[in-house]
Amino acid sequence: MRAMVYHGPGQKAWEEVPDPRIIDDADAIVRVDAVTICGTDLHILKGDVPAVTDGRILGHEAVGTVVEVGAGVRRLRPGDRVLVSCISACGTCRYCREGHYGQCLSGGGWILGHKVNGTQADYVRVPFADNSAYPVPGGVPDEEILMLADILPTSYEVGVLNGNVRPGDVVAIVGAGPIGLPAITGARLFSPGHVVAVDLADTRLEAAQEFGADITVNNSREDPLAVISKLTGGLGADVTIEAVGVPATFELAVKLARPGGRIANIGVHGAPATLHLEEQWIRNITITTGLVDAYSTPTLMQLVASRQVDARKFITHHFSLGDFTEAYDVFNRAADTGALKVVLTR
Amino acid sequence: MRAMVYHGPGQKAWEEVPDPRIIDDADAIVRVDAVTICGTDLHILKGDVPAVTDGRILGHEAVGTVVEVGAGVRRLRPGDRVLVSCISACGTCRYCREGHYGQCLSGGGWILGHKVNGTQADYVRVPFADNSAYPVPGGVPDEEILMLADILPTSYEVGVLNGNVRPGDVVAIVGAGPIGLPAITGARLFSPGHVVAVDLADTRLEAAQEFGADITVNNSREDPLAVISKLTGGLGADVTIEAVGVPATFELAVKLARPGGRIANIGVHGAPATLHLEEQWIRNITITTGLVDAYSTPTLMQLVASRQVDARKFITHHFSLGDFTEAYDVFNRAADTGALKVVLTR
Amino acid sequence: MRAMVYHGPGQKAWEEVPDPRIIDDADAIVRVDAVTICGTDLHILKGDVPAVTDGRILGHEAVGTVVEVGAGVRRLRPGDRVLVSCISACGTCRYCREGHYGQCLSGGGWILGHKVNGTQADYVRVPFADNSAYPVPGGVPDEEILMLADILPTSYEVGVLNGNVRPGDVVAIVGAGPIGLPAITGARLFSPGHVVAVDLADTRLEAAQEFGADITVNNSREDPLAVISKLTGGLGADVTIEAVGVPATFELAVKLARPGGRIANIGVHGAPATLHLEEQWIRNITITTGLVDAYSTPTLMQLVASRQVDARKFITHHFSLGDFTEAYDVFNRAADTGALKVVLTR
Amino acid sequence: MRAMVYHGPGQKAWEEVPDPRIIDDADAIVRVDAVTICGTDLHILKGDVPAVTDGRILGHEAVGTVVEVGAGVRRLRPGDRVLVSCISACGTCRYCREGHYGQCLSGGGWILGHKVNGTQADYVRVPFADNSAYPVPGGVPDEEILMLADILPTSYEVGVLNGNVRPGDVVAIVGAGPIGLPAITGARLFSPGHVVAVDLADTRLEAAQEFGADITVNNSREDPLAVISKLTGGLGADVTIEAVGVPATFELAVKLARPGGRIANIGVHGAPATLHLEEQWIRNITITTGLVDAYSTPTLMQLVASRQVDARKFITHHFSLGDFTEAYDVFNRAADTGALKVVLTR
Repeated sequence: MRAMVYHGPGQKAWEEVPDPRIIDDADAIVRVDAVTICGTDLHILKGDVPAVTDGRILGHEAVGTVVEVGAGVRRLRPGDRVLVSCISACGTCRYCREGHYGQCLSGGGWILGHKVNGTQADYVRVPFADNSAYPVPGGVPDEEILMLADILPTSYEVGVLNGNVRPGDVVAIVGAGPIGLPAITGARLFSPGHVVAVDLADTRLEAAQEFGADITVNNSREDPLAVISKLTGGLGADVTIEAVGVPATFELAVKLARPGGRIANIGVHGAPATLHLEEQWIRNITITTGLVDAYSTPTLMQLVASRQVDARKFITHHFSLGDFTEAYDVFNRAADTGALKVVLTR
Repeated sequence: MRAMVYHGPGQKAWEEVPDPRIIDDADAIVRVDAVTICGTDLHILKGDVPAVTDGRILGHEAVGTVVEVGAGVRRLRPGDRVLVSCISACGTCRYCREGHYGQCLSGGGWILGHKVNGTQADYVRVPFADNSAYPVPGGVPDEEILMLADILPTSYEVGVLNGNVRPGDVVAIVGAGPIGLPAITGARLFSPGHVVAVDLADTRLEAAQEFGADITVNNSREDPLAVISKLTGGLGADVTIEAVGVPATFELAVKLARPGGRIANIGVHGAPATLHLEEQWIRNITITTGLVDAYSTPTLMQLVASRQVDARKFITHHFSLGDFTEAYDVFNRAADTGALKVVLTR
Repeated sequence: MRAMVYHGPGQKAWEEVPDPRIIDDADAIVRVDAVTICGTDLHILKGDVPAVTDGRILGHEAVGTVVEVGAGVRRLRPGDRVLVSCISACGTCRYCREGHYGQCLSGGGWILGHKVNGTQADYVRVPFADNSAYPVPGGVPDEEILMLADILPTSYEVGVLNGNVRPGDVVAIVGAGPIGLPAITGARLFSPGHVVAVDLADTRLEAAQEFGADITVNNSREDPLAVISKLTGGLGADVTIEAVGVPATFELAVKLARPGGRIANIGVHGAPATLHLEEQWIRNITITTGLVDAYSTPTLMQLVASRQVDARKFITHHFSLGDFTEAYDVFNRAADTGALKVVLTR
Repeated sequence: MRAMVYHGPGQKAWEEVPDPRIIDDADAIVRVDAVTICGTDLHILKGDVPAVTDGRILGHEAVGTVVEVGAGVRRLRPGDRVLVSCISACGTCRYCREGHYGQCLSGGGWILGHKVNGTQADYVRVPFADNSAYPVPGGVPDEEILMLADILPTSYEVGVLNGNVRPGDVVAIVGAGPIGLPAITGARLFSPGHVVAVDLADTRLEAAQEFGADITVNNSREDPLAVISKLTGGLGADVTIEAVGVPATFELAVKLARPGGRIANIGVHGAPATLHLEEQWIRNITITTGLVDAYSTPTLMQLVASRQVDARKFITHHFSLGDFTEAYDVFNRAADTGALKVVLTR
């Protein structure tokens, strides 16, 4: 089969590789019908994720068709259309029993395209298939379901639910990119009073408005603290969601929260941040971090199926699998191309 | 009357001052029968709290007898024995309506011995008396109830409840001083599996054992991470409580928590800390900070009255009001004197 | 002034009475600018509420203008436009400290038009004014704010929040009248997957659709259990909300819930119901009851002000205060007149 | 092997039967080292549980040694000592993903000694072994761990956690038998202010005192409502736990709760109860029901291992497996024999 293979920092190739095989009773082999590229894949290609070694097939998001299942697989059958989630789950360890699949202690968590071969290929082996692939309801196109493999549950669980967005809240979202925009979508499910998007790029802020932000702040020109302060009688935001992953945006997210507010970090950070405890110790804040667990995937699938979440809005470009190299290029140059999510189909 | 008056950094005096008077309908005047000194008072005396100005009577903890009430006071009558809490509450603002009295927007919060005259005196004016002074059940000595003015609700709310201690949890408490020790008491109310106390002083760790820590770690000699790691199969503590207030102890508290763990900061910090988001973004942690609200005071009063919490253990020294200067000296030299809480009575 | 006075079962009159006066420091006198009639008022007129005695002015909902305040009132000033809530709160008792104002132990709770004179008059005395009347944001008409005096917080707190409606949930609302319809509005704030309205009257079910129910069941013709069962793969509704107040509808609400489901009773009941524990003991259900507390009033006010809740939809008829008797007649004959909420203005 | 086999109402025999075999990849075969009898087994023998048919081996509680595992079993190996829980869990259905194993949709839930052969035998086949049998920590005797198969998690989850017992609470437990007594143990983990046990038998009330009830009420002689009312200033209990399973005790449990209180039903009911909604609609109560899920088993195992829960206290009689018929007789005549839990060992 063909696959997008990592060959060390800066090196990748869409090339012929052996087909995957069942190696564990709980495995399923899935034919990839639709697949996308994640910002994390770009990090891997820079060499930032040492666990990914030469020869690994990339990708942790797909929608496809089951072609074979191991003897221990109960819920899936060949021919089933499934979502392959970025999170695999053994289903029996302490963390999986609590729904914290991302922290699986028995070989699950984020493994596809990371510790085992991934989804950017004609076929993929899905370990722990019963708890890692989700049957797809009829009538919803592959490409919409594909948005549930990573960006929607990540922004919903780690941003919106950890931040405990409530009706009437003022929610500030720092960063209006591929994670911040679905965080706006997720926050809107709880009818906040205002969603304030903060970013440095006007194009992203325009997108934020389309996704449901009613106030936008370009913090290259305007002070978001002043905007939030005016909006809240000087108190600050009820919830802030960090969706970038650098110290400055985290520190801004903390600063924008009101006393008693919640700061939900989604961003993937590569460096420590400064926490101003000399100001914050007295302000009753709650800060959360997290890798997605994908416990919300079935709920989000219902919301997409019933059109309460419009997953199409995240997709900016379409390719066929054979044009994978071009798709990476377009996604990599997002600032120029306006790429949000690119979808590749068979 | 006599009072302990602040006269600028390093300057205080037990001196004659005018008696307090009712100046608002919601005020009560309380005769101070028992009073104590807080670590915060020592900070004030160093000049660290600029809101405290020359002439301010110190102190935010007392048990006493109501001698006069304003026309708007409903729950208190002259002759009532009451706890004067460190937190005053208007009872009607947004934060008070949610029980977040410490964040009161209408002139409450921590004001006694801070923004208005305090309790280290023969008499004290208690603003918003109905929501700031608590009738005391019969049969419990003043000095035990006095522990409910600050240290018990602070460690219980900001440490134990924010940290969400649950039966079977491994709880690490960083700092075994006047806040860490009641945090051990509070944590024990939820039947944790282990309470691990971490401190640099063996005398404090011995105290921690008496208060219910079953494991102690002197981190001048031993690595607390290794101890916790061994105890938890490499995972980390379910809950860590920071009870010191310097960057190193906060950073240790974060490091000791397991994936999915909670870090409850009680310490009063004067400097920023480093938050290692490059490690923690993926670990699903929750960090909380907070000033006490005193919403738990009635519950804790019941627990003290029923002897489920033994408040006597916190008291190491007794003085009469006339010996206030000596009491400050003993409390200030806690490392030498072993002072935990000193009680002054009429 | 003029007022609607109760004179025993079946007897009421819009008549001249003395103006109200401040009798407690915490009182405010409010000029009534807009007032409405509640189903509870009809119950009172039938003689079903013995605490209401001859001579009592009826009504527990109003929007008006403060004309005088007691010496202890802090938040309100003459000239302020305020919502007079159906719930009064002392603000200091155990229940008020927990936000359970409806259960106030010190003379609050539902008292207006019940234990003290009410709002169906030119002026009303509002006890505990600081915690019982809410300043109204500019730009929102009186009649919309008036919907926040009872029906919106009641259906939101006792139905939607007690029922813990979550995104994607199937919510069944039994009864599409003056409480069931705002429960639909409230449930929609949390983006449920489906809202199923059940009623015996087609006109009410049509209204339910306008308020956001996507499925309606006339249970004089159709079996709601079959509808819900089909919709949920045989499981049952995630949340059911009882909004009628008779045994049959409560029992239906219990039956419609899935294992693990929540049943939130809003209805005012006059007779016991049968709880089929022989079926339900094993099904992990949660049943809640409640009188409104009005803790959500500030949040709902924001949502009305920002047009996320359209309060105008509840208002079917307008009258002037002088036509109070006619307004009662129209409201009493709701089945014929289609009255949902009638508004009387100065 | 030998097994206790059901042969229709009133008929059972300890007899020779074929050894169990692995029939599914997820099965384990466990040698039974310690087993007990449940009140539910007595119900089955009366013919009250029609799903149990002639030939079924009884029993849903055991501690034993794994002798064989299916190819899909990951966590268990032959030789492992395990607790066999009364609840089996597929681990992948909607309910299992939420930790509601008792409601498993794919063939789990309470199946042992019910829908498949049970534990009262020399060997038992354990379906879904990874999520249904729990490795036992060293150093804790089999018979203590055995108490975790049913009574401890049932009373803890369905009584104490559903009832949300909190420090300082007044907890009323209606019924001091094999489920009520461990509910006292479980409630004590949260440091309630008072635990009031209500029963008709003085011997049970004496046992209740030993398990930690500080107040006992024999409701054949004394009115529990009067006792609770006096204890709570007329309000009622914060939490009541029903541990009997007849209408009268459920109705008493509802009556004893304060406004805002929680009523947690553990009892297995065979008849409907009357819910006095005409009194309770206004009192903000929460009623819960439930079958155990066993999600708390690992936590409780730690608490037993660390001696914070003393499981030995539940065991009144010891037998060898060969004396199974006598053990049933003693357990069946509990009123005479004082039997609480009987343990049979190899």
